[in-house]
Amino acid sequence: MSLPPQELERLLAHVDANLGESLDRWFALLRIPSISTDPAYAPQCRAAADWLAAMLGELGFDAAVRDTDGNPMVVGHRRKPDGLNAVFYGHYDVQPVDPLGLWASDPFEPVLAERENGEKFVRARGAADDKGLVMTFVEACRAFLNLTGDLPIGLSFLIEGEEESASRSFAPFVTANAAEFEADLALVCDTGMWDKSTPAIVTSLRGLVAEDVEITCASRDLHSGGYGSAARNPNQVIADIIASLRNPDGSVAVEGFYDDVREVPPEIVEMWNKLDFDGTEFLASVGLTTPAGEKGRTVFEQINARPTCEINGISGGYAGPGFKTVIPSKANAKISFRLVADQDPHKVRDAFRKHVRDRLPPDCTVKFEEHGAAAAVAVPYSGPHIDKARQALMDEWGTEPVLHGGGGSIPAVETIKKVLGLDALMIGFSRKDDAVHSPNEKLDLESFHKGIRSWVRILAALG
Amino acid sequence: MSLPPQELERLLAHVDANLGESLDRWFALLRIPSISTDPAYAPQCRAAADWLAAMLGELGFDAAVRDTDGNPMVVGHRRKPDGLNAVFYGHYDVQPVDPLGLWASDPFEPVLAERENGEKFVRARGAADDKGLVMTFVEACRAFLNLTGDLPIGLSFLIEGEEESASRSFAPFVTANAAEFEADLALVCDTGMWDKSTPAIVTSLRGLVAEDVEITCASRDLHSGGYGSAARNPNQVIADIIASLRNPDGSVAVEGFYDDVREVPPEIVEMWNKLDFDGTEFLASVGLTTPAGEKGRTVFEQINARPTCEINGISGGYAGPGFKTVIPSKANAKISFRLVADQDPHKVRDAFRKHVRDRLPPDCTVKFEEHGAAAAVAVPYSGPHIDKARQALMDEWGTEPVLHGGGGSIPAVETIKKVLGLDALMIGFSRKDDAVHSPNEKLDLESFHKGIRSWVRILAALG
Repeated sequence: MSLPPQELERLLAHVDANLGESLDRWFALLRIPSISTDPAYAPQCRAAADWLAAMLGELGFDAAVRDTDGNPMVVGHRRKPDGLNAVFYGHYDVQPVDPLGLWASDPFEPVLAERENGEKFVRARGAADDKGLVMTFVEACRAFLNLTGDLPIGLSFLIEGEEESASRSFAPFVTANAAEFEADLALVCDTGMWDKSTPAIVTSLRGLVAEDVEITCASRDLHSGGYGSAARNPNQVIADIIASLRNPDGSVAVEGFYDDVREVPPEIVEMWNKLDFDGTEFLASVGLTTPAGEKGRTVFEQINARPTCEINGISGGYAGPGFKTVIPSKANAKISFRLVADQDPHKVRDAFRKHVRDRLPPDCTVKFEEHGAAAAVAVPYSGPHIDKARQALMDEWGTEPVLHGGGGSIPAVETIKKVLGLDALMIGFSRKDDAVHSPNEKLDLESFHKGIRSWVRILAALG
Repeated sequence: MSLPPQELERLLAHVDANLGESLDRWFALLRIPSISTDPAYAPQCRAAADWLAAMLGELGFDAAVRDTDGNPMVVGHRRKPDGLNAVFYGHYDVQPVDPLGLWASDPFEPVLAERENGEKFVRARGAADDKGLVMTFVEACRAFLNLTGDLPIGLSFLIEGEEESASRSFAPFVTANAAEFEADLALVCDTGMWDKSTPAIVTSLRGLVAEDVEITCASRDLHSGGYGSAARNPNQVIADIIASLRNPDGSVAVEGFYDDVREVPPEIVEMWNKLDFDGTEFLASVGLTTPAGEKGRTVFEQINARPTCEINGISGGYAGPGFKTVIPSKANAKISFRLVADQDPHKVRDAFRKHVRDRLPPDCTVKFEEHGAAAAVAVPYSGPHIDKARQALMDEWGTEPVLHGGGGSIPAVETIKKVLGLDALMIGFSRKDDAVHSPNEKLDLESFHKGIRSWVRILAALG
């Protein structure tokens, strides 16, 4: 299928004219509280999967909700045996919403709000990550199917429900069903714009090793008046261990952590340095002034090209109002490592666990719970698909997209590369101020609208 | 009033015969969830105060619930202008009950349970600390008033509702009303037995400085994929600060912390070393083997005679089920210091705050909230009142009471000494395994019963 220019204009006009209905469908999906990390929301996760599969079915895909050991997978096929075929990846699960008190409105009752300058945005958990971005692609497909009855390329949807909780079921499912997903490339929409008017294609992602660490000392909580100083305090132990994870220069102190780190070629660092990225401004937007990572690395390198260790959660003893002079029996930390190529996640995890065990004082036991171990991924900076997508994005936004590494991790992209052998075209339309994973997550209406139009152009270009 | 031996026997027989009714009254008080550290329970605290004042009134005390800036004070007078007068101190507030899941029964529905060996105990929050112990004294008074219509000594009750949350209102109330509480000594029942068959008189208490420390970095929660390593993580900052509070030898690293510490005289340490106290066994009873405090000090010294620093609570980021790759905006720790004579609590607090501020990395602010600053107290090992109490306890238990320092803190005892000039006779009947401040707090029925009998004997001896 080759698309004449007036056909493309007709498709884009159709997108514009039907934006209101697109919004309604997006809102319906946002209303389902599909929080994956808390098992209490498993039924809501399934409801989101059911909703998506039903919609893909209505659009003419051979769609189904497929069970896994965790939340189900949404699969939908509409393949072109003799043409180009792509696997589209996204996720329907969302992050928890706490602290709920900081939300300006119910996180699961989307609100279309307007800033003083007239710009509109939608506030809801998942507005950007990833329901909003998934819907930009689905609505682009809808435009083609409504107007032309067909798609420019063959497609297989693969929408998971555990991206926010380590994608545990994704690799087993894809491995067991690999034959269904033979294709030429993957399309992934879980990334962001370079800035509000410049699109981006992400060419690498950091890997992630996430560990829950629980330290147990005494067999029960103790009163610090009766036991204070003689009894080992797990809050102190976990703090000592966390303090030992970073060197004074901001680097990670786990043995061998940097052994396999691939240095970014100087010419790429050079390119990045020329980008319109101001590290000072980036930090200032969240109230910070001083990069906390490795000394001698720019903010851009620290967030995109260097590995790190972060303490995502720490808890032990009494945290409520007032005070309680307790020595708790247990303390807990959630610790994650962002990895770059070519770090081996399993090697990092083992080294981390050894680091902790080596520092355990007497009377402490440690329990580790794994919450994912994925390697970093990197795709080539050029090739037929990425070149076409660059042009399509340029046509829509009037500016050349930026190609760069992403600081986050999408474990599924590693699986898609490893199991299906597909390079991913990672394109998404969220903005840096979308408060993804935070209270008051939002997506600008323009991001949503031009996101749909961008996918129409990319699909047309690939076809 | 001089009490003939047969009169004392009649009183003790009255206590024995009416134990069931004493239990009913104790249970009624235990059913009131008077948690003082959480302001949500302020009405329940007042209900406990009302209940106690009503009961004292029925017994013939000039009793009232008296307002403070916090939870009210229960006051009840029945003085002897020409005789010996004592101020009785206790508290009606209790600790929080979390983690609720570890309780074998509702913490505010007291249960009279029985061990395999037939020993009975009462399980409830406050069973020991301090409602149970307050009631041993009240029921002893009741026996005198029921049988003789009078008390052997003059008494003023002073029962506060903020002992578990730093006794903020106690000192202002006592200072403003000092004239009402002129007396010869104080009686305090918020301590424990030496072991299940040996009573104890506590001759010193550690002081307490309690601080809530909140570290703020970024202006909002961040996604560790987008900001990880470049953005300052308050979980890391608070862990680094906590790690800096202790030296490798177990001592506290705050500058000047040990400057004013009074060493225990060698002959007292000698006496302690001869006591039937096995540090190994003490730790083993809660699953520990190795003293965590200052090297070169025995467990007994560490818990009774040496100052310490404990991390009572630590929290930041995501602590729920699963995982969330967040870099939080804030992290929090509740940190307390147990002090010994002659440490100045205000000097310690200032040195601690300086210690924290000196270690703050860029982009961090710290907020301190004070939860009490009380000095240690110490009373003489002998004198007319303490000698009479020793004999009375020996008569009841058949064994000489142990005189020793207490590791805990009762800020009110410091106030009673400083403002009213009274030395306190600190006698209580809880056991080391009563799980005070922990789930499944209990008091043995024997402790309660013989506790009442002990107070009858002590009041008789003092009269």
